Order: sequence, then structure tokens, then C-alpha cells
Amino acid sequence: MTKTYRIALDAMGGDLGCGPVITAALEALKSYPDIELILVGQEDVLLSELDAQKKSLNERLTIHHATQVVEMAEPPALALKKKKDSSMRVSINLVKEGVADACISSGNTGALMATARFVLKMLPGVDRPAITATLPSKQGHTHILDLGANVESSAEQLYQFAVMGSELATAVDDNKSPTVGLLNIGHEAIKGNGLVKEADVLLKQSDLNYIGFVEGDDSFLGAVDVVVCDGFVGNIALKSSEGLAKLISGFIKEEFTRNILTKLIGLMALPILSRMRRRLDPRRYNGASLLGLRGIVIKSHGGADSIAFGNAIKIARIEAIKNVPGHISEHIEQTLKQRYDEE
Amino acid sequence: MTKTYRIALDAMGGDLGCGPVITAALEALKSYPDIELILVGQEDVLLSELDAQKKSLNERLTIHHATQVVEMAEPPALALKKKKDSSMRVSINLVKEGVADACISSGNTGALMATARFVLKMLPGVDRPAITATLPSKQGHTHILDLGANVESSAEQLYQFAVMGSELATAVDDNKSPTVGLLNIGHEAIKGNGLVKEADVLLKQSDLNYIGFVEGDDSFLGAVDVVVCDGFVGNIALKSSEGLAKLISGFIKEEFTRNILTKLIGLMALPILSRMRRRLDPRRYNGASLLGLRGIVIKSHGGADSIAFGNAIKIARIEAIKNVPGHISEHIEQTLKQRYDEE
Repeated sequence: MTKTYRIALDAMGGDLGCGPVITAALEALKSYPDIELILVGQEDVLLSELDAQKKSLNERLTIHHATQVVEMAEPPALALKKKKDSSMRVSINLVKEGVADACISSGNTGALMATARFVLKMLPGVDRPAITATLPSKQGHTHILDLGANVESSAEQLYQFAVMGSELATAVDDNKSPTVGLLNIGHEAIKGNGLVKEADVLLKQSDLNYIGFVEGDDSFLGAVDVVVCDGFVGNIALKSSEGLAKLISGFIKEEFTRNILTKLIGLMALPILSRMRRRLDPRRYNGASLLGLRGIVIKSHGGADSIAFGNAIKIARIEAIKNVPGHISEHIEQTLKQRYDEE
Repeated sequence: MTKTYRIALDAMGGDLGCGPVITAALEALKSYPDIELILVGQEDVLLSELDAQKKSLNERLTIHHATQVVEMAEPPALALKKKKDSSMRVSINLVKEGVADACISSGNTGALMATARFVLKMLPGVDRPAITATLPSKQGHTHILDLGANVESSAEQLYQFAVMGSELATAVDDNKSPTVGLLNIGHEAIKGNGLVKEADVLLKQSDLNYIGFVEGDDSFLGAVDVVVCDGFVGNIALKSSEGLAKLISGFIKEEFTRNILTKLIGLMALPILSRMRRRLDPRRYNGASLLGLRGIVIKSHGGADSIAFGNAIKIARIEAIKNVPGHISEHIEQTLKQRYDEE
């Protein structure tokens, strides 16, 4: 008998309600015979949505009732204190209790992070969680972390992010020795602030496939598999790129709808433009991993539709199959042991 | 008689040699009757290039001989010490001596920054220079600084960058009260690291049109006129965006050249694609200002062609006409006086 992986889905936390979550769940159950999904949320709401989609529960799709919902603008500390029966918290509890192998939420990032840390705790030797996501690149994609779980990080923490990102890439991409780069404002050793210089030393001493400093454009150009940076820098790099992508897509629309002739050409070019859009479609990159915790927690975009949410399920499944937290833990333990032996 | 503005051009510092500089100079002299240009570099090289372009010197286009050239990979300290007769240094000297109102170099950024600081000195009350450039946005463009002159900055320095960026936007865009935003990982006051929170307080107390925190995508979406950040973050945001732009343009090319049909459609769409490319053409944004110095110094991209260099001349001219350093100095002085009065 092959193993079955159970994933808890916070079905209430996103901007679009439970509809896209249920649609994505039904699709995923068809695609992956080795998963079972638990819809977490208000039972009556979930049942009526299933009814509307003319589907029903079965042994692979169950409901776990949770009475509360964390609001998008709710302060994390408040959610942690007052929403002990939220769909988000209960989803994480299911991971903690071993009922689920992973959980996914499209809810409030801050609350998810705070609750996951509180309920699951950090892996031994890991100081802080990191948010990681994949970005499109020339050859495929690049993993980048931290994307904003932390506003300030130490060199040691950047080193831990590197280990976590490397283990994730190994698992997800079947890449035994992913290259790791440290985000900096130049490739040369003399460039950069104190933090990256210190982290550079730690990374050079490590057993990671560390290639040194990388610049902001290297991630998109496919020069490296894992990009490490502090959360402030990572978040701004990500948002800047999103902004530019929106700008360019706006320009494309404007230019192709300028007049009747350009519209006609646009119509002919539609399959080409659609192909291009698919390659850059943010939904294909939905699903950011909260790494460093004793369990798998995936953050889906607040406005995720069923396609985007489906991608998050795909990621949760792979991380569960590959036991990413286990590998991170082992790797960090090895480092600590090695340092201890050297002392 | 109208005033004439003299601009010194480091004709040797760029990757492409003096050709593009001379072509751009000849074009600019036609476009702007109120400028005179001084080509700085090895006289024989410059004369033979002029000859090759079938042009000659005249009262508005002169040569100032300089024997040395700063190499692109040369350490700034070495250039400062050993290259006292470089085209870069001599161009800056001409500004210092009042012979030129501004200078432009496509040479080694670090050497330009170090030499400009050493020769011209900082404006009173300004701690550090900042590199600023414009980025395309939905409505036009956004000024962003610092882009990497400094790897670490204090809150007070971010405040000074804000004043400098605001004065530049006022001058260049004829915008009496440009909006200023502080780059952060969220709009809310609780977000961000200690540095931005401290700078936020200083900016709120200032007479600038400060709109608070902005995120990485706001600059491209035209939500703000001037974006302030430390040089590490700014450089990475800029490079990430450049990387994504290259990725997208690569995708466009790939999709339109996939087969004979897509190539045909691409041919028809060519005027549309070219228009789009023009709107995002980095050459249109060439010319980064080194602000905070007692003089106008413009950094042109190392690989600038004549169109790109021409844009740098346009920027140098406007900054000279509007006396940007004078306005920055006045504004900083006012702040210091105001703070003194309040104490």
C-alpha cells in the first residue's frame, strides 16, 4: 500500500471565500491519487458550497469544522489570542496533531506566521521562519527567501535561510546540489554591507553549493537556484518586480488596443500573448512555504483563485512527500555538530 | 543675451569609447542652442574620431586634453591616487573650477563617486552623496534614490536623500511639490525595520510633501514622484526590475519567433512591439545624478550608446539651468536652521 498524504485546507481565510478552495481541492483529488484533503471551516458554509458545485464529501474529502475566521486586516497578536477556533488555527493544529501532513491558508500572512510559530514551534537550531517562493527565470524558476517573514536578520539567520532554501530546492526540483547565491549589490567580495559580508564567510565554510554574491537580475536570468536575502530586501525586490510586470502588461494592453488596426493584430497575436502570459502567470507561482517550522505550512495568495490554490496544493504535496522539514532539521543538526567538533 | 551652459563630457570613460559621446554631443548642440560642450580626453583620439565622423571643432565644441583613462575595473582608491590626469578627473576639475556647469561620465561608478566627492566636496549639511535615476511608471516616471552610492545609511541620511530627490524632481519635472515616499515592506506604520521607522518620523516633521511608506510596486505604478531608500535596497530593487524586464523581453522574442506563423504575426505586430520597447527603453532613462555634491555630476551607463548619452546631456543641462545643487543646499540649510530655532 502506498502512503497517503493528508493536507488541511483553510477554506475560509482567502479574499474569495471557500469557492476556489473547494474547486481546487476537487481538481487536486483527481490529479493526485495519493492525497486526502481536509476542508477546514464553517461546516454549513462548506456544505452549501459543495452543494452549489454539485459535489459531495467522500473518504478523501472531509470537513473539519471551525467556527471562526481570521480577518485580513486583523492584527496577528489579536488573531492569536482571540481566534483559537479559526479555520487557520485549526488547520495548523491538524498538522501539529499529526492528523495532516501539511496545511495551506490564503489568509492574513502575519497571523499565519505568528500562529504557525506559536503552535508548531521552530525546528531545533532554526532561529526564525522564512517565507520562500519561486520566481520565473530563463531556465525555469528560482527559489528566493526570505520574502518578508523578518525585517532584520543576522548573518547566522541568513545562513539558516540558505540551508532551508537549499533543502527545499533539492526536494521540489529533484536537484541534488542546488546552487545558492547571496543577494548583494555587486559580485565582488568588497561590495556590500556588513551583514552580507559576514554571511558570505559562513556560507563559504558550509557544505552548501554556494556560488557567492548574486545581483538582483541574476535570479530572473536563471544564474542561480536559490537566492538568499533578508526579508526587507527580498520583499522589496519581489514587489518591485511585480510592479514592473504590471506596468509592462499594462503597456502591452495599451499598445494593442490603440486603434482598430492594432486591435486586429492583437487578435491574431492572441495565442502568442496568451502563451507568454501563461509563462509569467503569477498563479503558476502561488504557494509560498513558511520554512523552519516543525511542520509544513503553505501561504497562498489572499486573492488566489482555484488555479492558484491548486498550485499551492501541489507544493504542499511535494513538501510532504519529500519531508522537507525533516531534511532541514537534519542539515541544521549536521552543521551544529560540525561546528561543535571543530571547536 | 541668454546664459550659456557648459557641460564637460568625459569622452574616454565608457565601454564604447569616444564615438557615441561625440555623436551625442553633435546632436545635442543642434537641439540645445544654449549649451557648449567640452570633450575631455586624449586630443589625438578625439580629433581622429571627429574626423571619422566628418565633423570639426567649433566655438561650442572644444577639446580639453587629458592623458589618462580610468579603467572600468580599477579600484576607486587607485584611480583617485594614480589617475590625476584622467578624462574623468579632469571633467570634474572643470566643474570645480567653474569652467563647466556640469559634467558627465560613463566611466567606473565607484571611481566617479570617489573622485567627485574628493574634488567637489559635499554640500554643507549633506553627509553622503546619493545616486538617483528615473524609472518608467504608469503616468511618466519616478525618481528613486539612493541606488547604491551607500551600502548603509542612517535615518538622517535618508531624510537628506528625500530633500535631494524632491529638489531634483521639482527642477526636472517642473513639479512644485513632488510627493515623496519611503520604501518599505508595507504601508502601515507598524511595518518595517528600525531604520525606516526612524526616517519616517523625520520625514513627517519635514516640509516635504511626504506621503508615508510606499511598497516596491508603487514606484512603477506611478503612485509617488520620489522614492527614498538606502542604497543596498535601491540597487537590488533596480537590478531585480532590470532582470525581470530582460526576462519578459526574452519571452516576447521567443514566443514571436516560435514558428513561421508566429513570425508573420510578429512582423505585423512589429510597430506595436517597437512602440512598447521605446516606452521601456533603458536608454531613455540613462543619466543618474550624483546628488549632494558642490556641483553637477551625471553618471551615464558604461555601455551607453549615443542615444543614451544624449539623454544624460539633456539631464545635465536641465540640472544646470535649474541649479539643482543650489536648491538642495538652500533646502538643507533651512532644515538645519529650523531645527536650531526649535531647540
